[in-house]
Amino acid sequence: MNLKSIYAPVARDLVAVEDNFIDLADNWRDEFPELHDMLRHILTGGKILRPALTFLSGRCIDAKTNRILNMATANELLHISTLVHDDAIDHADTRRGKLTVNNIWGIEKAVLLGDFLFARAGEFTAASDNLRVVKMFSNTLQTIAVGELRQAKAVFSPQQSRDGYFKRIAGKTASLLKMSTESGAVLGGGTEEQIQALSGFGYNLGMAFQIIDDILDFTATEKELGKPVGSDLRQGTITLPALLLMERYPDDNPVKDFLANHDREGNITRTIDLIKRHGLIDECYLHAVSYSDKAVALLETLPPSIYRQALKTLTTYLIARRK
Amino acid sequence: MNLKSIYAPVARDLVAVEDNFIDLADNWRDEFPELHDMLRHILTGGKILRPALTFLSGRCIDAKTNRILNMATANELLHISTLVHDDAIDHADTRRGKLTVNNIWGIEKAVLLGDFLFARAGEFTAASDNLRVVKMFSNTLQTIAVGELRQAKAVFSPQQSRDGYFKRIAGKTASLLKMSTESGAVLGGGTEEQIQALSGFGYNLGMAFQIIDDILDFTATEKELGKPVGSDLRQGTITLPALLLMERYPDDNPVKDFLANHDREGNITRTIDLIKRHGLIDECYLHAVSYSDKAVALLETLPPSIYRQALKTLTTYLIARRK
Repeated sequence: MNLKSIYAPVARDLVAVEDNFIDLADNWRDEFPELHDMLRHILTGGKILRPALTFLSGRCIDAKTNRILNMATANELLHISTLVHDDAIDHADTRRGKLTVNNIWGIEKAVLLGDFLFARAGEFTAASDNLRVVKMFSNTLQTIAVGELRQAKAVFSPQQSRDGYFKRIAGKTASLLKMSTESGAVLGGGTEEQIQALSGFGYNLGMAFQIIDDILDFTATEKELGKPVGSDLRQGTITLPALLLMERYPDDNPVKDFLANHDREGNITRTIDLIKRHGLIDECYLHAVSYSDKAVALLETLPPSIYRQALKTLTTYLIARRK
Repeated sequence: MNLKSIYAPVARDLVAVEDNFIDLADNWRDEFPELHDMLRHILTGGKILRPALTFLSGRCIDAKTNRILNMATANELLHISTLVHDDAIDHADTRRGKLTVNNIWGIEKAVLLGDFLFARAGEFTAASDNLRVVKMFSNTLQTIAVGELRQAKAVFSPQQSRDGYFKRIAGKTASLLKMSTESGAVLGGGTEEQIQALSGFGYNLGMAFQIIDDILDFTATEKELGKPVGSDLRQGTITLPALLLMERYPDDNPVKDFLANHDREGNITRTIDLIKRHGLIDECYLHAVSYSDKAVALLETLPPSIYRQALKTLTTYLIARRK
């Protein structure tokens, strides 16, 4: 099982999204070559998960709709723009095994490129000619920004809570997956009930997806991650595995020592080791699976189709992935 | 003559914009106090020029329209979000005589606050329930981002041209003033001809406005500017006065020496001195006045009203201002 085979029912749709990306970059080739190069660099090589979700959701409702392409493109552009800003803010050197925009072109241009991509995402959204998805887009961007601000505030703080963690990942990740599925359902012409089912599916999938990401940050290899192991912790971001460790050992644990700036590398190594040895990874998986179960249950309310089946398979794939 | 008296015909409208800002900040008071503080800090004390333009333009067409408030709010929020990102990118310490967001809360949070403000601006735009202004909004944000990217690319470059300068200020400033007037005209229900007249008015006013800003950066005092004199040049941004000096003395001039990183402070002082002594400020004013004349001529095509008169007076005021 791989993403390409899961995406098969919307393979041609996803080629159209990638064609949009190529056009978007090529439009600037002569007039502003540097912008062209930045766009080419950043618009290639992703999972294009969000456009796949938008198309699969829309086609769950109406298999023949042709109103989804602009919004599917917008969802991925919005995602990429937040990555560009995140990496600039975090001074990250690599992403998906490639150099980051801020690494190659500097933080200033990375911030501005992110703004440009927001704008293009907004244009593609508006090109859907549907005020409901336009409002959804601005609302989601706001939710993401607040989620990121919460995360920035929580960085290196010894005050961490599950509630805070789940709020943050809801804002920074689940909100966009929710928009990806919900916008597909709206543009596919779904009933309010269908729209809510696909919206809830996207939200719960997003929560599960981010928890898995946070697990892999500790358990995968640097090669699989395309960035160093324990990157979040290194940047002072406490995700679920480290949070559970803090709960389990409130008085004495390496996460606290790390946050207090003692022996950083040693405490990161100890944290990774303890998390693995004390079954905390399994506990994190239980959280993820609880969300993905809710996601799949919501799918069951929709009429069966190859698109619904693909969303279900995709959920399993994303939970089981190793990178 | 002061802004308050010029804004008088739309004074109550502008109070409503400021009420929107207060509500926007207060909504976060309990849930996220730091965001509340940042919003309070950044949403007070501006010229609120853009909302004034939107209301005056809309009321030129329909004196009693109540469809403009959301868009007027959006135009100012978009403006503020670009300032927040600009200051973060430029590592600016002060703006309008106040500490910048990046100075108080750090660059990371400044970037994220800017994203949040984009999102809120987008939400207010969408609340206008008018797809034409929604498309205008995304298109303008794209134009601004490209203008800023062009400026970032031109920084500290010895290759400077008038064409490059006018393109940059069209992108980073005139586009937003154009949207401010054009969106008012659209929401006011103007004919296509009236919309184009007010759009052109905003664009030409924006060009004049930015040239004046660039003049004042050399001629005003630090106290008037709320930031150091010659700030643009210090950051390697070549504006019209310095550009004219480079044209006048292509072989030997302090701007080139500055860009080549020789005796920075001395060359800034020499640049300011030469620009003033060689009548280049007057030449810059001629450029600004040429744009503002075009702006005023476009107004003449609209039916006379106190709103049209206010736009005319505002143009004169903005050209004559000393800070």
